[in-house]
Amino acid sequence: MKIGVDAMGGDFAPGVVIEGLAQALVDFPALEVVLAGHQPRVEFYLEKYGLTGHKRIELVHAPTVCEMSEASAVALRAKRDSSITTLARLLKEKKIDAMATPGHTGATVAATKVLVRTLPGIDRPALAASMPSKKGRFLLMDAGANPDCTPLHLTQFALMGDIYAQYLYRKERPRVGLLSVGGEDIKGCELTKEAFKRLEQLPINFVGNVEADAAFEGEVDVVVSDGFAGNVMLKSAEGLARATVYWLKQVLTKNALRLMGAVLAKNAFVELKAFGASDVIGGAPLLGINGICIIGHGGSNPTAVRNAIRVAAECVEFGLNQRIVAAIENAGDVAKLQKFPPEQPKTQA
Amino acid sequence: MKIGVDAMGGDFAPGVVIEGLAQALVDFPALEVVLAGHQPRVEFYLEKYGLTGHKRIELVHAPTVCEMSEASAVALRAKRDSSITTLARLLKEKKIDAMATPGHTGATVAATKVLVRTLPGIDRPALAASMPSKKGRFLLMDAGANPDCTPLHLTQFALMGDIYAQYLYRKERPRVGLLSVGGEDIKGCELTKEAFKRLEQLPINFVGNVEADAAFEGEVDVVVSDGFAGNVMLKSAEGLARATVYWLKQVLTKNALRLMGAVLAKNAFVELKAFGASDVIGGAPLLGINGICIIGHGGSNPTAVRNAIRVAAECVEFGLNQRIVAAIENAGDVAKLQKFPPEQPKTQA
Repeated sequence: MKIGVDAMGGDFAPGVVIEGLAQALVDFPALEVVLAGHQPRVEFYLEKYGLTGHKRIELVHAPTVCEMSEASAVALRAKRDSSITTLARLLKEKKIDAMATPGHTGATVAATKVLVRTLPGIDRPALAASMPSKKGRFLLMDAGANPDCTPLHLTQFALMGDIYAQYLYRKERPRVGLLSVGGEDIKGCELTKEAFKRLEQLPINFVGNVEADAAFEGEVDVVVSDGFAGNVMLKSAEGLARATVYWLKQVLTKNALRLMGAVLAKNAFVELKAFGASDVIGGAPLLGINGICIIGHGGSNPTAVRNAIRVAAECVEFGLNQRIVAAIENAGDVAKLQKFPPEQPKTQA
Repeated sequence: MKIGVDAMGGDFAPGVVIEGLAQALVDFPALEVVLAGHQPRVEFYLEKYGLTGHKRIELVHAPTVCEMSEASAVALRAKRDSSITTLARLLKEKKIDAMATPGHTGATVAATKVLVRTLPGIDRPALAASMPSKKGRFLLMDAGANPDCTPLHLTQFALMGDIYAQYLYRKERPRVGLLSVGGEDIKGCELTKEAFKRLEQLPINFVGNVEADAAFEGEVDVVVSDGFAGNVMLKSAEGLARATVYWLKQVLTKNALRLMGAVLAKNAFVELKAFGASDVIGGAPLLGINGICIIGHGGSNPTAVRNAIRVAAECVEFGLNQRIVAAIENAGDVAKLQKFPPEQPKTQA
């Protein structure tokens, strides 16, 4: 199996990527890696980690980099030889089985959509982020790839999320909920009301509407949402988590007694951080494209890079995409693009 | 000034409400209160808190209660004599200057919309929730009253939020941001893109798009959103805060050393909770209806009830609604209902 790795992705590339790769090569001896990046810079770090001439690494020169600050469209159009575009092209040509990047999410989504295209029957790929809950974790999808969605999109997200959760959480029948608002009376917005009718008809364990707070209680395994509300949920959690750490530091350093307490309980705070950590999973897959693509956080550490490579390989082994295609096929007309008059994304409600 | 208070609202009514009222009557000697509720039950608690026959309390019998578990529409239709409906009617007839309820949000929104109606020029009322950030607080509106919105609605929310933030945060030119997703390239969904063009034209301190995490960093004073994404943001924060407390307890009770540390730093955790506490403000106003209406949390404590009454009175004194009407008038065609072809709420994106 060949995994394409973006050596230039993330805030600490290529050092962090190569260090993560070094771990992955030791831990997964069957893996072959195609490394895309700026050759001299990558070679410098390969040497640093003793990987020069490693027989399971193939280095492909990609002279430009999609900087995190760049607009996706610009990055895609102006940098046809970037590490991300290079990997997307290799994925399209089936020269690699999967790709992993801790890089530019927008540019990766754009590059894979344009070059690799979606799986047969899938209209839009969606980003599947794994979030912590009281009882474990849940999958949030779409976490931000599609700001404007139709009921059909949500239906396909539900099917894809169901399958990915089977792999990621080792659950046979993940509980799939539709992100919504209000109690029993306000049953959401126009989009979710329409999507609800479709999700009810799917051969999945659909448990109905779920509010954002219930998701953090651990009431579902998959939260289906449009990419706008999904991204708001993801970013709210990130923002509040950072604010909480900030407040904790403030209140714990106010006097000597508290400070002493904080020192005694230091390991507890280290452990607390682990609940929110994404390095165990390494990244969020972009589900629905015709190839496996794992997108990591820009701030990925070597463990995250190692695990993004692991998840990419496991998704291939699991037959993720074959299962998705079969699920769409199996779900009936309600999840099929061609059976409905083509929907246009409408103004968000 | 006469404030209508819902004696039956919230999870611990009427006891908590009467206790909060007792505080308010002492702290605000100019206030008169019209108390709506089930007479015998309310009188029992009035006696308990030594308020029987208090000359600044007028008790209006409202035989039924909108239970928190009931659907708003049902509560409104079947319970025309509930405490919420009674107060909405008094507000409509200008027999009270404002109302405060720690009760059923949906039923209150429905009752005031139907009975009190919106202010001249306002199409939809919106719930304005105050949320904590690293640098203080910010206003989130709409926090959930309107799952489906148009660009005009967001424009009016921005104007109303600007004025309420002037009162609540004592800022002359609150920074108003539009809740959105993605970086510079993905500029949000269809709804926010359209709304952006309008917000730019308003005579407010519009600072552009803001992502949910930036709001928690304290980058804006007002976050403008449709009620769906707004509610997702509110509920995500509530859910993650609860989960964090749960995780904190877990990691701090793992061994004796940590437990000792936690005991030493106990006051720090009490203070941490205060960041998220809503009782300082007492509730969220429903902005845009033709009367002041403060809706508290169902779990309000007496301090929250007292402060909801205070905020209601202060909004009247501030001339909140007159200012809103003037702002809409002053904002030009971009914020006016009659100047545009009537928009229909569309499917959420």
